[in-house]
Amino acid sequence: MTKLRYTFADRTERMRASIIREILKIASRPGVISFAGGLPAPETFPLKQFERAMRQALKIDGTRALQYGVTEGHAGLKEFLCGWYAKQGLPARPSELLFSHGSQQGLDLVAKIFLNPGDKILVEDPTYLGAIQCFNSYQPRYVTVPIDEHGMRPEDVEKALSKNKVKFIYVVPTFQNPAGTSMSLERRKALIAAARRHGIPIIEDDPYGLLRFRGTPLPSLYQLAGGKGVVYMSTFSKLLSPGIRLGTLMAEPTVMQQLIYAKQASDLQNNTLIQYAVYHYCKNGDLDRHLPKIIAAYKKRAAIMMDAIRRHFPHAVRCVEPEGGMFVWCELPKKLKASDVFKKAIKQNVAFVDGSVFFANGGGENTMRLNFTNSTDASIHTGIARLGAVIKQEMIRVGAV
Amino acid sequence: MTKLRYTFADRTERMRASIIREILKIASRPGVISFAGGLPAPETFPLKQFERAMRQALKIDGTRALQYGVTEGHAGLKEFLCGWYAKQGLPARPSELLFSHGSQQGLDLVAKIFLNPGDKILVEDPTYLGAIQCFNSYQPRYVTVPIDEHGMRPEDVEKALSKNKVKFIYVVPTFQNPAGTSMSLERRKALIAAARRHGIPIIEDDPYGLLRFRGTPLPSLYQLAGGKGVVYMSTFSKLLSPGIRLGTLMAEPTVMQQLIYAKQASDLQNNTLIQYAVYHYCKNGDLDRHLPKIIAAYKKRAAIMMDAIRRHFPHAVRCVEPEGGMFVWCELPKKLKASDVFKKAIKQNVAFVDGSVFFANGGGENTMRLNFTNSTDASIHTGIARLGAVIKQEMIRVGAV
Repeated sequence: MTKLRYTFADRTERMRASIIREILKIASRPGVISFAGGLPAPETFPLKQFERAMRQALKIDGTRALQYGVTEGHAGLKEFLCGWYAKQGLPARPSELLFSHGSQQGLDLVAKIFLNPGDKILVEDPTYLGAIQCFNSYQPRYVTVPIDEHGMRPEDVEKALSKNKVKFIYVVPTFQNPAGTSMSLERRKALIAAARRHGIPIIEDDPYGLLRFRGTPLPSLYQLAGGKGVVYMSTFSKLLSPGIRLGTLMAEPTVMQQLIYAKQASDLQNNTLIQYAVYHYCKNGDLDRHLPKIIAAYKKRAAIMMDAIRRHFPHAVRCVEPEGGMFVWCELPKKLKASDVFKKAIKQNVAFVDGSVFFANGGGENTMRLNFTNSTDASIHTGIARLGAVIKQEMIRVGAV
Repeated sequence: MTKLRYTFADRTERMRASIIREILKIASRPGVISFAGGLPAPETFPLKQFERAMRQALKIDGTRALQYGVTEGHAGLKEFLCGWYAKQGLPARPSELLFSHGSQQGLDLVAKIFLNPGDKILVEDPTYLGAIQCFNSYQPRYVTVPIDEHGMRPEDVEKALSKNKVKFIYVVPTFQNPAGTSMSLERRKALIAAARRHGIPIIEDDPYGLLRFRGTPLPSLYQLAGGKGVVYMSTFSKLLSPGIRLGTLMAEPTVMQQLIYAKQASDLQNNTLIQYAVYHYCKNGDLDRHLPKIIAAYKKRAAIMMDAIRRHFPHAVRCVEPEGGMFVWCELPKKLKASDVFKKAIKQNVAFVDGSVFFANGGGENTMRLNFTNSTDASIHTGIARLGAVIKQEMIRVGAV
């Protein structure tokens, strides 16, 4: 008898526990003030409105809402969303829209249809950790391009694309996760032009685009490119609820066809009931009615965090003031390691994410990501004050003062 | 400027539209009597009970039910289910149970952690089409073993495993999809012994196991193996609703850890709200209360279909009378092609699935799968009568009488 030794696929070598999800377990301990997660503020969830929509789905649509549905998704909801996206300037047709089980599955479907092991993909440095983790299971190599406060510099992108055969460009252009920055209009245009010159598709991840609380709105890459050569990903996670796992993908027909095949193979279809409920939620007018409330809440919290940072962090810590989204990104003095700060902060019951996890090829050891949406005003004050004290101690310890 | 030509991954060559999902589109035309789908009877959905559970989730758990949750799944629901599975004789611990977005995602996660391109997997011939489609995106080779009315013959399994280095064995032992048959107890034991001799894990897909309306219950492979060396997949799709996309995976710790990583990378977590609602549904006692109703309904429909078949099909068509599940499997005389029968039947507004799609390496052109759960009693009569007439005509046409 051969002893059973499970032999896993090669791809599992690069599949590890999500560091953020592990941090979240620590951060969810009672008493911990957590700036770690990317969790929206639960008190902004439109509970009453969603309850009503769910009741409508079960009353009006009944058993249809519990049955299998087509992979392509609820036709009425798709039609509504296309109209809604069109008002934002996005070219959208129901046949070019697909639902995913949250944005994370959108990333997985994109990776599934595009990536062979060893393929190169261009990503911002830093970039969204969930994307790195998802892509890792498809064994790509990363070509990283650093970002400044206006995104990737066109000359850096051009250089990277000239030197590397890249399969696609993955980018979070608005209120970037983790850096909170937005790509300027000029650079958006330049990025599209560069992608076209090299014949490479862009994957645009836009979970926060509508959560702007200051500054001028910027068109999405998908809008600027007229829907050509760009796969656009959005989600209801930050507009309604992340627990309902409803993401959207937009792509031109050639790509959409492959995405649908990949979706069928991966999980057949999105949750039918949720699609019906969100349909009623949208039709009731709650999507537009609710958005300003989230924005107002996040604007206030971002201001409180920035205020607390100015008061409690040493000047040597450089933080990016966000215009939207959910995060403040901080650079510590070069000598400091965020991982050391984390160890001491967690003893003071404060958690955040060590920014180095967002660098696909390493680096960024002196960076931190702070989430401001999922803490009360008071705990933002307390948490930032404690974190400031820890950083000051660390600066003294390593001689960075 | 390079013209953008999307270059897809090699795996997409084997990713095609689900034939069944395409048939379902035809079959959903008004007036068509469809035996094609694997859709449960919507009138057996526990709508009222699920409505109550959903109301409880939103009232009692409130915003928590809309927030992100842990990848591992709702602790209370997992605990309940482990108790429930234990009553069925299955060894189950909450740490060895994971939720998937329907059974289809369970298959995808299993394939993701085990399969390198070119790996061989052993499957029954015929086997579940959704599994073939899911596995295809991981580019395996299939080693097929034919089944008779008691499943795969041990000597065939042994021969296949001796001749081939197999990564895992995928099997639907109870009320097999498509063939409706169940593997006998002796063959279950022999399969486990063979897998152990060769050091190979078994993936046991059991969506219908509890839907038995005649005969003696059989233990699952997972139960017989004491949970060792078997990944067990089940689903709420056939017990409650397929639209809510709630599947379960059970596996020992080494495998479970990899499945959790794969789940995080694929879509972070299952729907939080659905987990809370199903938790209340279970706690209210509705899971056990509802099951007999489904079984009674399916028993009646299976009997009606078998009765109609005996009345309207030529004797030369051999059909397997099911003891549970959702399907009747028929073999036409060798000279007939189910695809020809399909073309003529659909003109008479009757649809079914050409059985050849269930053969991973081809074959079975003279087989058909008939679903009896999603048609009314009257339409089963009418549909089978029309189908019988078409088969008779085809037999005359090809000289099979």
